[in-house]
Amino acid sequence: MSGYSTVLAGLEAELGWVRDTYTDLHRHPELSLEEHRTSQLVAEKLTTFGYEVTHLGGTGVVGVLANGEGPTVLARADMDALPVTEATGLPYSSEVAGAMHACGHDVHVSALLGAAKLMADGRDAWSGTYIALFQPAEEVGAGSQAMVDDGLVTKVPRPDVAFAQHVMPMAAGTVATTAGPVLSAGDSLRITVHGKGAHGSMPHMAVDPVVLASSIVIRLQTVVSRETKPGDFAVVTVGALNAGAKSNIIPDRATLLLNIRTYSDQVRSTVLAAIERIVRGECVTAGSPQEPEFEYYDQFPLTGNDEAVTDQVTKAFTAHFGADVVKHAEPQTASEDFSRIPDAFGVPFTFWLLGGVDPETYLAAVANGRVAQDIPGNHSPFFAPLIDPTLSFGVQTHVVAALSYLAKEGMTP
Amino acid sequence: MSGYSTVLAGLEAELGWVRDTYTDLHRHPELSLEEHRTSQLVAEKLTTFGYEVTHLGGTGVVGVLANGEGPTVLARADMDALPVTEATGLPYSSEVAGAMHACGHDVHVSALLGAAKLMADGRDAWSGTYIALFQPAEEVGAGSQAMVDDGLVTKVPRPDVAFAQHVMPMAAGTVATTAGPVLSAGDSLRITVHGKGAHGSMPHMAVDPVVLASSIVIRLQTVVSRETKPGDFAVVTVGALNAGAKSNIIPDRATLLLNIRTYSDQVRSTVLAAIERIVRGECVTAGSPQEPEFEYYDQFPLTGNDEAVTDQVTKAFTAHFGADVVKHAEPQTASEDFSRIPDAFGVPFTFWLLGGVDPETYLAAVANGRVAQDIPGNHSPFFAPLIDPTLSFGVQTHVVAALSYLAKEGMTP
Amino acid sequence: MSGYSTVLAGLEAELGWVRDTYTDLHRHPELSLEEHRTSQLVAEKLTTFGYEVTHLGGTGVVGVLANGEGPTVLARADMDALPVTEATGLPYSSEVAGAMHACGHDVHVSALLGAAKLMADGRDAWSGTYIALFQPAEEVGAGSQAMVDDGLVTKVPRPDVAFAQHVMPMAAGTVATTAGPVLSAGDSLRITVHGKGAHGSMPHMAVDPVVLASSIVIRLQTVVSRETKPGDFAVVTVGALNAGAKSNIIPDRATLLLNIRTYSDQVRSTVLAAIERIVRGECVTAGSPQEPEFEYYDQFPLTGNDEAVTDQVTKAFTAHFGADVVKHAEPQTASEDFSRIPDAFGVPFTFWLLGGVDPETYLAAVANGRVAQDIPGNHSPFFAPLIDPTLSFGVQTHVVAALSYLAKEGMTP
Amino acid sequence: MSGYSTVLAGLEAELGWVRDTYTDLHRHPELSLEEHRTSQLVAEKLTTFGYEVTHLGGTGVVGVLANGEGPTVLARADMDALPVTEATGLPYSSEVAGAMHACGHDVHVSALLGAAKLMADGRDAWSGTYIALFQPAEEVGAGSQAMVDDGLVTKVPRPDVAFAQHVMPMAAGTVATTAGPVLSAGDSLRITVHGKGAHGSMPHMAVDPVVLASSIVIRLQTVVSRETKPGDFAVVTVGALNAGAKSNIIPDRATLLLNIRTYSDQVRSTVLAAIERIVRGECVTAGSPQEPEFEYYDQFPLTGNDEAVTDQVTKAFTAHFGADVVKHAEPQTASEDFSRIPDAFGVPFTFWLLGGVDPETYLAAVANGRVAQDIPGNHSPFFAPLIDPTLSFGVQTHVVAALSYLAKEGMTP
Repeated sequence: MSGYSTVLAGLEAELGWVRDTYTDLHRHPELSLEEHRTSQLVAEKLTTFGYEVTHLGGTGVVGVLANGEGPTVLARADMDALPVTEATGLPYSSEVAGAMHACGHDVHVSALLGAAKLMADGRDAWSGTYIALFQPAEEVGAGSQAMVDDGLVTKVPRPDVAFAQHVMPMAAGTVATTAGPVLSAGDSLRITVHGKGAHGSMPHMAVDPVVLASSIVIRLQTVVSRETKPGDFAVVTVGALNAGAKSNIIPDRATLLLNIRTYSDQVRSTVLAAIERIVRGECVTAGSPQEPEFEYYDQFPLTGNDEAVTDQVTKAFTAHFGADVVKHAEPQTASEDFSRIPDAFGVPFTFWLLGGVDPETYLAAVANGRVAQDIPGNHSPFFAPLIDPTLSFGVQTHVVAALSYLAKEGMTP
Repeated sequence: MSGYSTVLAGLEAELGWVRDTYTDLHRHPELSLEEHRTSQLVAEKLTTFGYEVTHLGGTGVVGVLANGEGPTVLARADMDALPVTEATGLPYSSEVAGAMHACGHDVHVSALLGAAKLMADGRDAWSGTYIALFQPAEEVGAGSQAMVDDGLVTKVPRPDVAFAQHVMPMAAGTVATTAGPVLSAGDSLRITVHGKGAHGSMPHMAVDPVVLASSIVIRLQTVVSRETKPGDFAVVTVGALNAGAKSNIIPDRATLLLNIRTYSDQVRSTVLAAIERIVRGECVTAGSPQEPEFEYYDQFPLTGNDEAVTDQVTKAFTAHFGADVVKHAEPQTASEDFSRIPDAFGVPFTFWLLGGVDPETYLAAVANGRVAQDIPGNHSPFFAPLIDPTLSFGVQTHVVAALSYLAKEGMTP
Repeated sequence: MSGYSTVLAGLEAELGWVRDTYTDLHRHPELSLEEHRTSQLVAEKLTTFGYEVTHLGGTGVVGVLANGEGPTVLARADMDALPVTEATGLPYSSEVAGAMHACGHDVHVSALLGAAKLMADGRDAWSGTYIALFQPAEEVGAGSQAMVDDGLVTKVPRPDVAFAQHVMPMAAGTVATTAGPVLSAGDSLRITVHGKGAHGSMPHMAVDPVVLASSIVIRLQTVVSRETKPGDFAVVTVGALNAGAKSNIIPDRATLLLNIRTYSDQVRSTVLAAIERIVRGECVTAGSPQEPEFEYYDQFPLTGNDEAVTDQVTKAFTAHFGADVVKHAEPQTASEDFSRIPDAFGVPFTFWLLGGVDPETYLAAVANGRVAQDIPGNHSPFFAPLIDPTLSFGVQTHVVAALSYLAKEGMTP
Repeated sequence: MSGYSTVLAGLEAELGWVRDTYTDLHRHPELSLEEHRTSQLVAEKLTTFGYEVTHLGGTGVVGVLANGEGPTVLARADMDALPVTEATGLPYSSEVAGAMHACGHDVHVSALLGAAKLMADGRDAWSGTYIALFQPAEEVGAGSQAMVDDGLVTKVPRPDVAFAQHVMPMAAGTVATTAGPVLSAGDSLRITVHGKGAHGSMPHMAVDPVVLASSIVIRLQTVVSRETKPGDFAVVTVGALNAGAKSNIIPDRATLLLNIRTYSDQVRSTVLAAIERIVRGECVTAGSPQEPEFEYYDQFPLTGNDEAVTDQVTKAFTAHFGADVVKHAEPQTASEDFSRIPDAFGVPFTFWLLGGVDPETYLAAVANGRVAQDIPGNHSPFFAPLIDPTLSFGVQTHVVAALSYLAKEGMTP
């Protein structure tokens, strides 16, 4: 036996516990920064597999398998669930009220554990170091930074390349890659503007923050319509506007929650500066008695795939799975904090998309132009990746990508 | 002894229990429609005074004192407190968390009870029928209607004239009257507009209700600025706008709470029609997938004082108290539901304002143009009428007004 | 014969030339500051009548008739026409293309000339000084100031009281008076805001002044809706917004023409300050590269009738014409510059309204609530006062008002 | 001698008259649909060169050179100038007041005439048919359609492929190509909205079209910010908003001129539908008494380069000029009506960009990020292409592109 299949030979035998891990994690979702049970489960498995385990950033776990001379590859999975109440009706539905693995991080953890096992078992076929990293709190953009802040680059060997994958509404058994930007930069921004309260019948005694906040919402539309270059990707969403509680009381403040998505640092700077200028200008217009407050949170970096790394991994995928299974990924509007990990080391990375939907269902939806309507997307209470072949495929993608750097000379995908 | 002073002779002797009643009610505020303790206290006192007591509209109480031939006079007080947390630091502060007599209804009840006692004790000096009516739930505009719906006009003798008073930020020991509109009509309106939710990064999949609701707020400003006749009184306040909870989720609806104040039915019709037209038009503009919903609540009628009644009462006040004490009341922007009671009977009424602030403090504030800033107004957690002479004066105003209709011939104020 | 009728006895005999003067003026309208023909006609007549004539402020004319001891009364008429193309079809229609006496100043001039003649002829019946003042350029708010600037107070005797009248859409043969504000203060304001031009396909290279100016228009609505006290009279109209000429060129500036009407100096200050604050704030919001420019023009003072003067004149009107003919005038939203003349002298004045519409037509329109729709108002190309009895009545009102101050003792209206 | 150079050998000898033609045309610019002199000049030259000339669409001219078996190639130039007053100070500046070749169509005409001459002289080296088409009125999007409407497809041989070029602010001596969309679709739209006029002091009698039009401008911003997919190219510019002329007259209508740019029919449909929905909705909101009017004009199709044609031409350019001279063109926000010509025949095309700026100046501007600021772009009164090597290069690009289809076997670029 030659080629990557040497390492993947044991796949079938391992899928039992991989599936069990998946349903176990799905039953026991843990919110961001509270991934204690998951973290412990991961650490135990990695130890069992022979990895040297380090805890980092609270619930983060890193397993290192040093296997001789050669490159170092880091693969990352995220562990946290979402504050969503599951509505799938699956037998292994969440047993935690108000929490659900609605973004598929349970797939990511299970698949990376499976890959870690196969890499450990198949170490004769490759040479170098394999690092399986499990991060907390991706959903709030805080987990990768927590691991970096806790000393990631001093406590873990410097990789040459880093990988991550995400399960998406694509046909299960397919994978999609793209060089360049694949996920947008994301910023959340809480803006508080101040008025002056008064009885609702006495507007002349007030500075009306409801009118002020509404003007801001309307004026913010011009950031994308007039200030960014046509065709540049930029989104400015006011997801929430809350002011006042009674009809006859003019409140004294209003709060806006903004979400900003961009695909380049330059556009991001332009957009954020425009937002702040507009809000300050509107406060002048309104005669606001107090400066507005800006609080950024849930910030996500741009995920920009390295061209050479993506090319190498895509070729390995194509050789191993066949060209019909490896798709071109359209850049997504969503965001991730994965890139802070390779960025901390200063190393290139690629992030690919893993299909999780029954292929027939998916193709029918595509044919009808109803993917968005018919297939529950990430964060939906109905989000339900197909266990097979999603998990099996998610294990293989990690192994193939790793081997494309670590395989001994002469091995082929 | 002749004149109204015959009836008012016992005032000093009664003020002790009137003050105790006031501080007792202030300590035990009861929210709208829950005035059980107050209602029982009132009923017991009226019974003791010799009134025939009827319960109406839940916690409403009416005491009738038939005293021979002559006109029938109805005087009304409101009993409910507000969901405000008291901050006065008074020794008789509210003992009920989150509730406070912040609008002075405790003054109204105590003063009318005092007047009812004096009218009963002084019945030799007058002839006719005196009705002391205590209504629930003025603050939510529901109490007078509840009494009407419970059979007021069939269970209580038809008055010839009706009175009510309200304690206000004016010098204690003064009273203010005006013919014509004295309080505005008030309408509250809950508007729900519908969008289509989506992830914050996918505005093209959404119909954004935050933008829709903001546009409505902005466009509603034109009702007063362009659609009502310049100089006509009209207020359209959006006291609350609430939509969404997270920065990166475009919600599927928004709620606006409006408060509308007008001084004529014609202006009110124009304003309400304009609001509904604007909201519907904005929904068309936005491509809203569902009709907006309009729900009116807390509706208050216009309080329009009868000219002849006001004239007669004002003359009696002036004769009794002296001209320097009887002021001209400016129409107030606030609203009341008192008028539904005389309207149910089809009889004229007058509603006057009673001073409750230390005169020196008040005059200093007037001189500095700082009444609004320096004197805690109605509904403020710091609202604190001066006990003396507010209560004594509030008893006398009711007695003098009643006697101006009921006094035996030859008596003078 | 005693009473005012002594003076008015010659009225019938004079009406012939008064009517001819009216139709002559109507045929030959002259725009503001160009009233050369009218001015000459007025000066010639006044001289003929025995008045001492002074020319002031370009085309302004003042005739003074000193007639012994006693008070001095000034009556004023305005002379200018409007840039309106007449559409009445009257036989004496305007013969000047694009100009029309569409505001009735020809009535004012003819009636005051008639009154001047009667006062001169009847000088035995009164004692004092009568001044007939004919001002230019009322329509642009410049004429009375021009006369003041040209030395009015040094060249003309100081009056004790001043009068003016205006023909209005009321029944001919009626007059209306009111104490206090009768005409609003009026200010016109040209605002230029600056953007940065660019090709229409490159908004990111521009600062869009069309969006900026539109935002200003929208935001200005809040001046009346939120910043003035409900019920206070205030109008902020953007009568013109002009920006750009081609669809695909983003222009570099926009111009707004505003008209502001108020009834008190305090409200006026509040409104003007709010407008300037809003425009400046919007320019900050837009990132405008240059300060906005504010240019005030066509400014009119508040016309506030003196209470005592109005009372005295109203009583004389009522005694002379009968109570059914003397109406209470509602304050008008329009403006006048008359008051600058008495203000220059520091003397009180009253300004009354003169009916000019066929009474049957007027009453039918009132009954149907269609005055605004059915009766061509001032400034309309169809504006057409009924010659009789409007002119006769307009002569008498001036004579009666004057005699109420100048008549010898014992005379009665 | 072999290769394309056979045909291009005469280039140097021809450049004299090509330059003279260019400066002559530049001196005598003719506005859209008035290109009489230019048209005559072109027709005379084509006839002289041996082309069979057809006049089409008013001032349009087509020259056909049938040269044996083989493909048919159509090359197009546009002839019209712009209503711009030249400010270049060039010795050959426009001699026509208010007109200027500010978009370089004089370059296009001169270069295509030069190419037509070389193709005629070098006919031994190629086989097939060469068509040189000169269209009127590109600037207003009307010229190509006029030629189509005048029977283009029946009067001119059907080409196999069509070419056009445009001089741009790039280094002279460079050319840029791209497959797919290279110029946007462009639509101009005149919108008239109706209000109800009134005196500026009586907004309650009016439906204010200034407020209505301003609201439309503001609300149109949401088409790009919320309704198109983030990253899709879409521009909605309101280039002009005109309403009213006087501060104190509320006008009865407002006019908006919009310019819309898109890169796909689907986005275009979405944008146009959204604009119409918003305008109609705003009219409902305003209570507009009359339906808005929409008038589309100056409409330009999407210019989408055929992939195979572009590839073939780009390869020929690269082989002939060298790889450093052939750039990748970024899609432009501007529009063209060229594509209506190949679309009428149903044949593929490519449209390339020709550099016209002194290379040193250009590179310095690029280095300083000041291309937009320092280099006068198309439509600027300072637009001034460098005569050499722009004309020489523009002749060669046409010849090389044509020969890439027409050259006899064995010839190489």
